[in-house]
Amino acid sequence: MVTFLPVPIPSKIVCVGRNYADHAKELGNVLPTEPLLFLKPPSALIPHAAPIHLPAVSQHVEHEAELGVVLGKTLHQASEAEARAAILGITCVNDVTARDLQKRDGQWTRAKGFDTFCPVGPHMLLVDVTCDLDAFEILGRVNGALRQHGVVREMHFSIPRLLSYISSIMTLYPHDLVATGTPAGVGPLHAGDQVEVEIPGVGTLSNPVIHPPETSR
Amino acid sequence: MVTFLPVPIPSKIVCVGRNYADHAKELGNVLPTEPLLFLKPPSALIPHAAPIHLPAVSQHVEHEAELGVVLGKTLHQASEAEARAAILGITCVNDVTARDLQKRDGQWTRAKGFDTFCPVGPHMLLVDVTCDLDAFEILGRVNGALRQHGVVREMHFSIPRLLSYISSIMTLYPHDLVATGTPAGVGPLHAGDQVEVEIPGVGTLSNPVIHPPETSR
Repeated sequence: MVTFLPVPIPSKIVCVGRNYADHAKELGNVLPTEPLLFLKPPSALIPHAAPIHLPAVSQHVEHEAELGVVLGKTLHQASEAEARAAILGITCVNDVTARDLQKRDGQWTRAKGFDTFCPVGPHMLLVDVTCDLDAFEILGRVNGALRQHGVVREMHFSIPRLLSYISSIMTLYPHDLVATGTPAGVGPLHAGDQVEVEIPGVGTLSNPVIHPPETSR
Repeated sequence: MVTFLPVPIPSKIVCVGRNYADHAKELGNVLPTEPLLFLKPPSALIPHAAPIHLPAVSQHVEHEAELGVVLGKTLHQASEAEARAAILGITCVNDVTARDLQKRDGQWTRAKGFDTFCPVGPHMLLVDVTCDLDAFEILGRVNGALRQHGVVREMHFSIPRLLSYISSIMTLYPHDLVATGTPAGVGPLHAGDQVEVEIPGVGTLSNPVIHPPETSR
């Protein structure tokens, strides 16, 4: 079976750190006064059902269940209302993170940028401005056991606020993906695990975790 | 006059921090044991002659003259020899950085990710494997005064080593851009300045610095 990404390849993937109070606390961080941004490279994208590869260089890879926002319009220095109206749809994102490398490197680019570290899908739910984004729940499961559970209304910065803020720095283009942060309950992934991100009403993104195959060179 | 980027829009821009000993020292940093990576969003790209916009939120924007490598082939877990053979060309890059925000945020995404913060051009020099990359010089000037001067052979990690390392994390695709780090001499940019990055034999990338225009909304 071949599975496809629910959207075209974005020109960038903008992610938000520490956007749920309980998750910031579990990693020993204070809540930021402004959204904390980082980027994942589009080369990290994989669709539903594709395997997450554990890099040999990390001994501690974790799941981060998140709600992903897909842009439908270009946003540049947008108000929150303009940002809200520019959302094309929402989807499930797993912001897979090598926690040991994240701490060691300082910059998060390597820890969050490995190939296969950005599962997205399986569907995108189209949302118009009448849709109540705050009611969406995000669930993370490993081998069927619930590990994470958050609700959008618990976010430290709302989705329109995040998009408005990002657009004050970098122009967002149609199909750009914004991962809006993860609730508490992040935990390790091991080879053989099956990790799921579910947003009820949107779908369940499920990916197996494997050791990387031998390089074929 | 309309000026174009010298290459198609890359799927990602991978940058390297602290890759010259004298620059690491001027910012009070030690040299890393592995390349220190970060990403700039493609939305930051501007061509030769386009203006760099000073964001109102920063009081300290600096130039960073760099040699940019443009990939011609896909690289995944590549050896240094394979990486060297995958280079399509080289060009001038200015890794414009809001130094105050870089220090405040911890993550460098905002400080280096503003629109117009990645001038590239004006030309790409095609290089084959017989070309001696180590001999290229990088010069940075502000209003005609020399501020930065480095030579590729002074890099802490060589260009093939950087590309091999990056490809062990994230697959590099044709036209992806790798900014290979800046030599000592970074300094502030002010409205009205003209900033240049020159690589003799490649070209001179020159951009005016302006206060951002009023938002047209």
